[in-house]
Amino acid sequence: MLRPTTTYRTTTMLARGYSAAAGKIGVIGLGQMGGHMARNLAAAGNHLVVFDVVDANVQAAKAHGKVEAAATPRDVAKQCHTIVTMLPSTPHVSDVYLGPHGLIHELTKDHLLIDSSTIDPTFTKTLSATISETGALIIDAPVSGGVNGAKNATLTFMVGGSKPAFDKAQTVLKQMGKNIVHCGGPSTGQAAKICNNLALAIQMTSVAEALTLGEKLGLDPKVLSSIMNTSTSQCWSTTANNPYPGVMEGVPSSNDYNGGFASVLMRKDLGLAIDAAKSVEASIPLTSSVHQFYNMIVNQGNGKKDFGYILKFLQGKA
Amino acid sequence: MLRPTTTYRTTTMLARGYSAAAGKIGVIGLGQMGGHMARNLAAAGNHLVVFDVVDANVQAAKAHGKVEAAATPRDVAKQCHTIVTMLPSTPHVSDVYLGPHGLIHELTKDHLLIDSSTIDPTFTKTLSATISETGALIIDAPVSGGVNGAKNATLTFMVGGSKPAFDKAQTVLKQMGKNIVHCGGPSTGQAAKICNNLALAIQMTSVAEALTLGEKLGLDPKVLSSIMNTSTSQCWSTTANNPYPGVMEGVPSSNDYNGGFASVLMRKDLGLAIDAAKSVEASIPLTSSVHQFYNMIVNQGNGKKDFGYILKFLQGKA
Amino acid sequence: MLRPTTTYRTTTMLARGYSAAAGKIGVIGLGQMGGHMARNLAAAGNHLVVFDVVDANVQAAKAHGKVEAAATPRDVAKQCHTIVTMLPSTPHVSDVYLGPHGLIHELTKDHLLIDSSTIDPTFTKTLSATISETGALIIDAPVSGGVNGAKNATLTFMVGGSKPAFDKAQTVLKQMGKNIVHCGGPSTGQAAKICNNLALAIQMTSVAEALTLGEKLGLDPKVLSSIMNTSTSQCWSTTANNPYPGVMEGVPSSNDYNGGFASVLMRKDLGLAIDAAKSVEASIPLTSSVHQFYNMIVNQGNGKKDFGYILKFLQGKA
Amino acid sequence: MLRPTTTYRTTTMLARGYSAAAGKIGVIGLGQMGGHMARNLAAAGNHLVVFDVVDANVQAAKAHGKVEAAATPRDVAKQCHTIVTMLPSTPHVSDVYLGPHGLIHELTKDHLLIDSSTIDPTFTKTLSATISETGALIIDAPVSGGVNGAKNATLTFMVGGSKPAFDKAQTVLKQMGKNIVHCGGPSTGQAAKICNNLALAIQMTSVAEALTLGEKLGLDPKVLSSIMNTSTSQCWSTTANNPYPGVMEGVPSSNDYNGGFASVLMRKDLGLAIDAAKSVEASIPLTSSVHQFYNMIVNQGNGKKDFGYILKFLQGKA
Repeated sequence: MLRPTTTYRTTTMLARGYSAAAGKIGVIGLGQMGGHMARNLAAAGNHLVVFDVVDANVQAAKAHGKVEAAATPRDVAKQCHTIVTMLPSTPHVSDVYLGPHGLIHELTKDHLLIDSSTIDPTFTKTLSATISETGALIIDAPVSGGVNGAKNATLTFMVGGSKPAFDKAQTVLKQMGKNIVHCGGPSTGQAAKICNNLALAIQMTSVAEALTLGEKLGLDPKVLSSIMNTSTSQCWSTTANNPYPGVMEGVPSSNDYNGGFASVLMRKDLGLAIDAAKSVEASIPLTSSVHQFYNMIVNQGNGKKDFGYILKFLQGKA
Repeated sequence: MLRPTTTYRTTTMLARGYSAAAGKIGVIGLGQMGGHMARNLAAAGNHLVVFDVVDANVQAAKAHGKVEAAATPRDVAKQCHTIVTMLPSTPHVSDVYLGPHGLIHELTKDHLLIDSSTIDPTFTKTLSATISETGALIIDAPVSGGVNGAKNATLTFMVGGSKPAFDKAQTVLKQMGKNIVHCGGPSTGQAAKICNNLALAIQMTSVAEALTLGEKLGLDPKVLSSIMNTSTSQCWSTTANNPYPGVMEGVPSSNDYNGGFASVLMRKDLGLAIDAAKSVEASIPLTSSVHQFYNMIVNQGNGKKDFGYILKFLQGKA
Repeated sequence: MLRPTTTYRTTTMLARGYSAAAGKIGVIGLGQMGGHMARNLAAAGNHLVVFDVVDANVQAAKAHGKVEAAATPRDVAKQCHTIVTMLPSTPHVSDVYLGPHGLIHELTKDHLLIDSSTIDPTFTKTLSATISETGALIIDAPVSGGVNGAKNATLTFMVGGSKPAFDKAQTVLKQMGKNIVHCGGPSTGQAAKICNNLALAIQMTSVAEALTLGEKLGLDPKVLSSIMNTSTSQCWSTTANNPYPGVMEGVPSSNDYNGGFASVLMRKDLGLAIDAAKSVEASIPLTSSVHQFYNMIVNQGNGKKDFGYILKFLQGKA
Repeated sequence: MLRPTTTYRTTTMLARGYSAAAGKIGVIGLGQMGGHMARNLAAAGNHLVVFDVVDANVQAAKAHGKVEAAATPRDVAKQCHTIVTMLPSTPHVSDVYLGPHGLIHELTKDHLLIDSSTIDPTFTKTLSATISETGALIIDAPVSGGVNGAKNATLTFMVGGSKPAFDKAQTVLKQMGKNIVHCGGPSTGQAAKICNNLALAIQMTSVAEALTLGEKLGLDPKVLSSIMNTSTSQCWSTTANNPYPGVMEGVPSSNDYNGGFASVLMRKDLGLAIDAAKSVEASIPLTSSVHQFYNMIVNQGNGKKDFGYILKFLQGKA
């Protein structure tokens, strides 16, 4: 704050130092998303140290280049200054960062931690404060773009954290994604992700309601969709992921709702939104309703279907 | 159906006849919207015959050029073959078209009726069938674009009716609006209007929930809005009518929610959607919820505020 | 108002006249409910004149005693001073009372009309005013108790109308039911009926949610039900119509949701509540939500199941 | 399981041992509820050892008889075999039981722990398993009856835990309450409490909706309430805590919604229900909706009002 110029110089030096000397990059969590992200980092010429509780995931990662396995997260932190984590839920992140074999036991001011998991922003805020006490830099950097985005290195990263941490993370993030957005201080990346996704789920449902009603009133779903696309109800779910089968080609609804963003994952993100809203006393009534609908969809056995399946749910299909 | 060629020729002749000979155009309903529409028709050189139950509205219309007043809707139909109606609700339309002094008593195959009111599509369907028995053509042509669109002749018309009726109405509609969309058979214009508006109300609420939660989680509303604008939660309510005060200039939220589309009117359109859904047994749960919210907003005394006021409602402002 | 004493005397005289001379009682609408009601009136010694659009219903009624068929509702009014109507929806009532062959063409100050249909209270209010202009008395008297109540003459009648009309109707109502409740002026019987039923539907859903969650948390549904029965969540749906199969004997849920009050009928009554709320600008958000759920239940093909089926709906059964 | 007789004898002996020798009872958490509960235990002749983070609460308790203060929860466990905890939230319970100065460090097979806090049943389940490893007995025993119930020792205890633990706790529980209900295994007391309360909140809203609509339709709230009281929409909220001001005497609604069960506490319990439902994937859509409404009520500044205030909320009062 006091000497921004110096700070910036330091940042630049750190960034330089990072790419020149630090060499190895750690990747923890090698599932559907993390696996592709590791592959892209290796493809960009980085030497990786990886960890996953599933050995098959580790072996698959080893095939991608200079990749070695670590015994624990702590072990990763010993060998790498820059570490990317991509984990399924808050408890996993807690364990990897703060557990008995967690990163925290080896952190120094040279470390940069990038958590791309989608988790509870309240936890992220606390985690960030705890990690910062070690001198290490940390950002939350959840992604949008799905498995295809991870595969093709076209992910969007929504980043929460200090400006120096954000700047320092650029090189690595750009090797895995296309858009890197600074959302604000610690945990705002998580916040942006869940706010985006709750609005998305509601908007998808709005389109499903319009198309369900419109069709019953005699409107051709294609005609109605094209009207909506150029009207005040235009949204991404009308223009890019129309939930009515056959209106658009190449989208999940036209492939029996396969591919796309699974209803069970949407339920998870809406659950995070509900938790976050509770913690800050925000009122999000439609989010609460669609969370319940996606829970019913999952209970009906359709959790793997793209979240556009809400249209079928409204039509009374189970 | 049997002799389409002849039919088309007839249509063409009628259309020609209309612009050359028929001369006078009837306008019934001269309120906030209808008044501007009449002015634009007069400005385009038409000779008008108008009717409104409010005499002041009639007098105001007379100032716009060749405009004469009629004693009843029936009287309008005696003098004009093309008649535009812009009325506040289904009973008004029923009365003007079918009442003791209604249009129906004078209709011939030369008449073209354009109903731009936003009303119950179920009624419109029945009305269209009844009117068609007289040989007259009728379209439902509700608008979007609001008072400014009416003023500047930039309205969008969503048209339901036969192709010949749609074609014949082009000239007149283009004198009042910019986009003329054929939605399908009778009543599909109404259907498209209410489907658009229910999706719009839900989407606006989705944005309000995201911004309410995001701000409480530490996100700058401007930053979150700009992220949403380029993400999967992009919609008209994020890009063109952001409900958070100060995020965009020149929108209602930045003017204490004045101007724009009043909450009480959104409540009306959502009410039409609920009615229509009931009649065709469609499930529209979020529409039902937002209909209730807008009713509460009206009951709290904020019905004149732009419908983006839902953000304040969620924040607990009354 | 001016001469209450006289009015009361008149009332008494009318009442006397009714039971002594008028003799015949008209019954219009001989479906599941009306058929049983007619049978009970005949069994009480009345001479009936009946009308139904379904001839089989008329023939069945004829088997019950001194029962003759009329050609039209108007014809019924010619022969009877006291007439009971039990019809499925508002348009039917409108037609029977006000249509070209309707009762209205024969009404005198000696007539007493009892409408036991469950319909839109707004319509009932208007109907009552219109009928009153003829000098005839009219009450709305919707029932609760279902088909069994009709069969066993144990119905509850919720009566809206003037005190004289209420008093005069006592004899006939008691031949068909057990509890006769005066709710207030015209249409308040309908209002009470739909208010009761909306609260009932929501309460049933509350019990279904508690039992669904409780079971998943390890509670025995019988134990939880018995706790609720003696706690602050006690309601008719916990004590008399528990929706969890096996908790109570002899209720629909223990018979695969057969018998009881059909979901499709609950949807109808909730629809009336929504309409009524719209007309008076009341906010009933949970009613709106459960109306949508019952619509989904019907769309899933389970409309004939008792409304306790909402429990299965929440569990994801279709 | 194998030798129930012996088990029962053991239980009896333990119970005897408890009242004869163990003497001191620990009470942790001396707020509005716990303070009264401690007073009742002291009044019954017990010697207490108490702990609270607020010193004033401790001093107040000391006035009630043989009451001494402990420095930490652990310290309480050193001196007492039977300990009652009454704490505001899950983290508090976690800290008191499992924290560095928690009970767990001193537990033996002679201890009986009674947690009367209303908290997350998922946590309670885990806690119970952890505590059981020490040999100590533990029950969850949340209460209903509010501050008055605590004051007058008329609380209802909903108990989850083993039969021996339930039996052993009888004496102490009866000194603080009237109804002691065994709900099942560990955490089922918590589950019963939140299931009851979610149903209660929804039922209260159902009554508020019925009364709001009914009044606007011309029904006297007293008349409608009395009809509901004897109909299928009868529930505790109609018969014992009517939310319409003036319908009943001596209830919160007739005292400007003062006294009773605060909306902010209902919000808390509904929040626990939402959390629990998420963890077991149960669908509770109306619970989710009313949770949001109570959040809005709190945000509007009315959190201290009895939860019957939902009626005012629906009417548009803030």
